[in-house]
Amino acid sequence: MVNKQQVTMEEIISLCKRRGFVFPGSEIYGGLANSWDYGPLGAELKNNIKQEWWKRFVQDREDMVGLDAALIMNTKTWEASGHLSNFNDPLIECSKCHQRFRADDLCDTWEKEASKFEKLSEDKKREKIQELIPKCPACKELKSFSVPRQFNLMLKTFLGPTEESANTVYFRPETAQGIFVNFKNIVDTTRKKVPFGIGQIGKAFRNEITPGNFIFRTREFEQMEIEYFIEEKNWKKEFENWREQMLEWIKDLGIDKKDIYELDVAKDELAHYSKKTIDFEYNFPFGQKELYGLAYRTDFDLKNHKLNYRDVEGKEYIPHVIEPTFGVDRTFLAAICSAYKKEEVEGGERVVLKFPNWLSPVKIAVFPLLKNKEDLVAKAKDIFNGLKKEYTCEFDDNGNVGKRYRRQDEIGTPYCVTVDFDTLEDNAVTVRDRDTMKQERIKIDELDAFFANKLK
Amino acid sequence: MVNKQQVTMEEIISLCKRRGFVFPGSEIYGGLANSWDYGPLGAELKNNIKQEWWKRFVQDREDMVGLDAALIMNTKTWEASGHLSNFNDPLIECSKCHQRFRADDLCDTWEKEASKFEKLSEDKKREKIQELIPKCPACKELKSFSVPRQFNLMLKTFLGPTEESANTVYFRPETAQGIFVNFKNIVDTTRKKVPFGIGQIGKAFRNEITPGNFIFRTREFEQMEIEYFIEEKNWKKEFENWREQMLEWIKDLGIDKKDIYELDVAKDELAHYSKKTIDFEYNFPFGQKELYGLAYRTDFDLKNHKLNYRDVEGKEYIPHVIEPTFGVDRTFLAAICSAYKKEEVEGGERVVLKFPNWLSPVKIAVFPLLKNKEDLVAKAKDIFNGLKKEYTCEFDDNGNVGKRYRRQDEIGTPYCVTVDFDTLEDNAVTVRDRDTMKQERIKIDELDAFFANKLK
Repeated sequence: MVNKQQVTMEEIISLCKRRGFVFPGSEIYGGLANSWDYGPLGAELKNNIKQEWWKRFVQDREDMVGLDAALIMNTKTWEASGHLSNFNDPLIECSKCHQRFRADDLCDTWEKEASKFEKLSEDKKREKIQELIPKCPACKELKSFSVPRQFNLMLKTFLGPTEESANTVYFRPETAQGIFVNFKNIVDTTRKKVPFGIGQIGKAFRNEITPGNFIFRTREFEQMEIEYFIEEKNWKKEFENWREQMLEWIKDLGIDKKDIYELDVAKDELAHYSKKTIDFEYNFPFGQKELYGLAYRTDFDLKNHKLNYRDVEGKEYIPHVIEPTFGVDRTFLAAICSAYKKEEVEGGERVVLKFPNWLSPVKIAVFPLLKNKEDLVAKAKDIFNGLKKEYTCEFDDNGNVGKRYRRQDEIGTPYCVTVDFDTLEDNAVTVRDRDTMKQERIKIDELDAFFANKLK
Repeated sequence: MVNKQQVTMEEIISLCKRRGFVFPGSEIYGGLANSWDYGPLGAELKNNIKQEWWKRFVQDREDMVGLDAALIMNTKTWEASGHLSNFNDPLIECSKCHQRFRADDLCDTWEKEASKFEKLSEDKKREKIQELIPKCPACKELKSFSVPRQFNLMLKTFLGPTEESANTVYFRPETAQGIFVNFKNIVDTTRKKVPFGIGQIGKAFRNEITPGNFIFRTREFEQMEIEYFIEEKNWKKEFENWREQMLEWIKDLGIDKKDIYELDVAKDELAHYSKKTIDFEYNFPFGQKELYGLAYRTDFDLKNHKLNYRDVEGKEYIPHVIEPTFGVDRTFLAAICSAYKKEEVEGGERVVLKFPNWLSPVKIAVFPLLKNKEDLVAKAKDIFNGLKKEYTCEFDDNGNVGKRYRRQDEIGTPYCVTVDFDTLEDNAVTVRDRDTMKQERIKIDELDAFFANKLK
């Protein structure tokens, strides 16, 4: 086997579509820009990610509880959190081709320039922007950019039967605020003591100016987020602990350590509320980009919401917060990119998704050697019905076995079980391993033990 | 034990809040009308419902696959499905107190009247509405209602950096359309043959004029929906099959058959696309209301989207659709209402949630008899750590054991394990059964087998 080359986005998108992992959203109507639907296998893979995350970070830990808050929240939440006034991107538009960009995407030093910028007159601002970004990257026009407009990224809608501004509400741009506003209710009902955390999985929405790269940046996305409440004095220790937990999770996704870069965000680029942030960047086919984030948010959030905490000795204080954030869609994409291998094999080439077993949407595929041999089919069905009580299984009797192996390789199924003519004599089947492609003869009676050992 | 009386909504809401099942959404900011957040136990209960539904109706069936489509869809979807022009409620407003109502809520014969209504002049319409609904139910003013306005229930938002109408998009008001628009992609990638179905769990949004009754009717809600594609000639058989499947599911939720009413929707009240619909109504504390629906939707949906199907013999046709719909939040509410019992017990009264075991958010609670006895606590922790690998467990050392039992009763935990002084001698613990309140002495070595038998 030779691993031929690094995977391209075209290959990933094509595999996702042809095998039913991800389809373009509303495709029969020409799609909806950068919207994607998770197909049958994608829904299973996404569920595997979310369920394992929930089990590991919420259910298995005594210092964690879960939450599932509404996507639409009272607007006062966004006033208090600062999202209504600050959650903006600097939007610029080319006066020639009218394409829109984020100024910070086109200018590396934007973060530093932005603060000075605000104090300039309109004319000076225009001069400055044209100095910082002299040329439109789309149509190449010179000095075509106008003064940036602060564009709020929250999706708004209207509740109730009128569009008066009193009814304007926003879809959450992050799951975090749902956790903060429930802090007191959770402390009161669970009697958890600091340090403890609240985990949440759910959708969030951002009206991104430049979404793109498949499911990497979309306006509708899903987060797995933890807010971990601590005493200020312990922040370094707790931060380091979560850093290790996140690396462990990344490893268990089957992502090679060498494809992960820990970017310690520089002091002058930190969000104003953060004292330390690490971006875990992954080597995506389109470049090294943020996969996860880990931030020490100080007491910024609970202070905004005027919340505090009373410890067992009656001391009141505002807990500080460590925030590990995991994008579901980015996890999905990084896991597929990491698993994707193109290999030269006897008789040609194969594409295989080498997922860790727990991630694979189908664990075992069961084949009768031939579809028109009733006794083979009946035996295979028997085995399939037994195994599917424990594992997600697929039955396939279509085409020759070689083709069926290729199909299962492409969706990352770790084991294929074939019932052949010998089976009727020796009560054994051929079990083929996805990664080694080796075939083993296993007694049907021993299949349960075999898979319990491999898959549990 | 005496089951004292039927539960009230006040009792349900109070229990949900005090035990962390459901909190008012954005409560610290005065809430957001009819918005609710699922707390630590609520998130677990909701996940149990969704995971079991998915396993039963999607993973365990060879004739089903899953899907997870985006919440925001191309607007052409809503044009084709008819939602843009027809998904309206008749909104009327009292000219005195300005409260708003749905005309069909205040007039039983509205469905029949509505079609005649459209042909009347404005004056006649006003006369007619004041004849049908003579008095405002809020302020009691006579003849105070205006002509109904058709109010579209979809939540709109704007994608992209302007609020031009070109960027207006809608959040899905049902998960069904996400399934229909992916029909072709799913047929092509999974090679499923009719009859087969597609299941989906996810949020949907309706700008209800009169939301209410706790989590029963909210503007943001979650559905578990199946579109089952069939040949027209088989519709009666398939409909009956799904009816039975739904009743089986309802039974397994612990809902008593006598609290379920199957309402065969009358021909003249059927949606125009449906040839038969059954509403499964549940006897909620606020009345008998729709829990689930089962509709035979003919070929209305795939025809709208100009989709068809080619069978193995090459015959092309438009499959018909059976649609079983399950609201997640209503399932949650009916399960709690059914499980809620108030019982007289020795020393007073207890509230207990008699969930079937699979639904309970916590399966086993482990207690040391006293919290300040190190060896008891250590032993209890040992047992807890062993059990929690398999089951959701809770450790509690707070207050006397009687109080701890009451707390676990209220959250529906089927088993409590107590480590006492005898444990250190006889290596056995007391296992207490939630429903019978009987206590059994079980050897620690035998706990795994005991719970495997009870909980698997």
